[in-house]
Amino acid sequence: MSPGSRRKTKSIDLGGVRIGGNAPVVVQSMTSCDTRDVKATVGQIRRLEEAGCEMVRVAVPDEAAAVAIHEICSRIHIPLIADIHFRHQLALLAMSHGADGIRINPGNVSPEGIRKIVGIAKTSRKVIRIGINAGSLEKEISVRHGGPTAAALVESALKNIRILEEMGFDAIKLSLKSSDVSTTIEAYRTVSAQTDYPLHLGVTEAGTLIQSAIKSAIGIGTLLYDGIGDTIRVSVTGDPVPEIGLAYGILRALNIRQVGPDIISCPTCGRCEIDLADLAVRVEAELRGMKKPIKIALMGCVVNGPGEAAEADIGIAGGKGAGMLFKKGKVIRKIREAEFVSVLLEEIRKMEPM
Amino acid sequence: MSPGSRRKTKSIDLGGVRIGGNAPVVVQSMTSCDTRDVKATVGQIRRLEEAGCEMVRVAVPDEAAAVAIHEICSRIHIPLIADIHFRHQLALLAMSHGADGIRINPGNVSPEGIRKIVGIAKTSRKVIRIGINAGSLEKEISVRHGGPTAAALVESALKNIRILEEMGFDAIKLSLKSSDVSTTIEAYRTVSAQTDYPLHLGVTEAGTLIQSAIKSAIGIGTLLYDGIGDTIRVSVTGDPVPEIGLAYGILRALNIRQVGPDIISCPTCGRCEIDLADLAVRVEAELRGMKKPIKIALMGCVVNGPGEAAEADIGIAGGKGAGMLFKKGKVIRKIREAEFVSVLLEEIRKMEPM
Repeated sequence: MSPGSRRKTKSIDLGGVRIGGNAPVVVQSMTSCDTRDVKATVGQIRRLEEAGCEMVRVAVPDEAAAVAIHEICSRIHIPLIADIHFRHQLALLAMSHGADGIRINPGNVSPEGIRKIVGIAKTSRKVIRIGINAGSLEKEISVRHGGPTAAALVESALKNIRILEEMGFDAIKLSLKSSDVSTTIEAYRTVSAQTDYPLHLGVTEAGTLIQSAIKSAIGIGTLLYDGIGDTIRVSVTGDPVPEIGLAYGILRALNIRQVGPDIISCPTCGRCEIDLADLAVRVEAELRGMKKPIKIALMGCVVNGPGEAAEADIGIAGGKGAGMLFKKGKVIRKIREAEFVSVLLEEIRKMEPM
Repeated sequence: MSPGSRRKTKSIDLGGVRIGGNAPVVVQSMTSCDTRDVKATVGQIRRLEEAGCEMVRVAVPDEAAAVAIHEICSRIHIPLIADIHFRHQLALLAMSHGADGIRINPGNVSPEGIRKIVGIAKTSRKVIRIGINAGSLEKEISVRHGGPTAAALVESALKNIRILEEMGFDAIKLSLKSSDVSTTIEAYRTVSAQTDYPLHLGVTEAGTLIQSAIKSAIGIGTLLYDGIGDTIRVSVTGDPVPEIGLAYGILRALNIRQVGPDIISCPTCGRCEIDLADLAVRVEAELRGMKKPIKIALMGCVVNGPGEAAEADIGIAGGKGAGMLFKKGKVIRKIREAEFVSVLLEEIRKMEPM
């Protein structure tokens, strides 16, 4: 399946944002601060919103955190999901305080607790994510499979879907996360053939920025390439804001959603006679935060320079201390290296959004 | 196909390193400095070697660069490949000066020039990479396909394989790179069904570090997951040394080659009562350069902490200002947050390589 043909899933509404069906793949994240600290949580969510985050999850470890959701929701602009472990009562409290969705972990909430959550979610039209995680899978299932294998994650997911369906509840999304990338891919591929609820993709506990970029891009990217996945969350240890850049980077790389600049820049080699690395870093920094989709080719020499520049919206093919400026496949003029950044930025700002 | 079952390709010998067949996936890179500057080039290659690079390519834009290969080869420990564009004579000169392999770009070397290179490569037992690149594809093929599509890259590859085969030459490896990730994946998938020469994987002009991590991990990772790929090169704009870390990160994430530490660390959330981000960054920094494969779980709380720590060689599941130390699935003892880094490093240094 090509990235163009996405697997059709049920469409659900989470606090006004559609997930699944024909909706674009939704980018989400989770706060890392103490949910009871409303100021810090709202501040982090607003930075996430600015970066392009479309829904956010907060941890709800106790009653005070559940109650804080009311004020947090009044000060943010995207739907909020309460992350629940161990105590189903916290989900009920979070819903009554305005959470648009609940993430439950069947590994640590009993079927009876889940049924209580479903009862309230049904009458108050909330979404439930069944969030299976290899690190906290139901013990009985894990033991029977000899560990948290892909098949074990899928069994847990299907079992818990049935619990919700038996109560006539279908505002469901599903995740099956492992910190092992191959297990994650296999689990989602298997479950996507057996259910059409929208899938929340992610590789769990993926580590710090670069390691998470690698693991998340392989795990989420391989699935998206196959048309699987309706919402994604990249996990980065620490501040969640960089997760959003990675998420859009994955979507952009597969031409699934074009948000922000796509900079094609060569690795440079013994042919390169301009300081391309410096140019690429400076252009990237200047355009940080830009949402307009634009393809920029920054190329060191004549081998692939003109070819790539011709395919881009704007590009430079470097020569000795100078370069040819291309726009939409046409050579505009020769520019000096000292002018590269200023000319590029001026031209980019003039261009219409595509 | 699971990552365990790799597609079987012909095995070739490039300067003593095997590529294809049952050989491990080889990690390679390319220098970014002026090849005529022997000191700089040797210095960069040695830094690449230290990072784990297993073969290296250098640009050969002129005769002086080709001649410099002789001295460069005498001072490095890994095979060297000469990157040739436009003038086939430079390939002949590079081979006579000790290059173990030649990368030709059929988009800018004539079939006649290619035949001259093949003649010498055959008698001197050198390897040739047919390096198709979307930015410099044969014009006639590109025009006929309406641009450098995956099918166009494949057509160029198969056409040029025939030129080499007609001369009885089979020490071939093949690359079909595009800066578009989906095109890259499609081209390799298609060609891998039609030929069994070893494949050199890469997404070309993938940009600066983080962007390249994303694009390369999706492109290379999706193919490796399908069992496709015999050697990989991650392209990062600028210094090539970080390419090696990304390459091993991709291989490690898919359990294809286990080199260096695999740090599983949670994103942290409102449940976390230790400074996990700081811990993860410090442990990562302390272990930089370590080749020993070890799985380390650094987890913020009890939700997935004990589960992940149990699957890892060593791990910490955080509590309030303290954490439980796990080794090979067993709880060892409770340690204070201030001791986290020192205890972990001490324990890791005591552990045998697996």
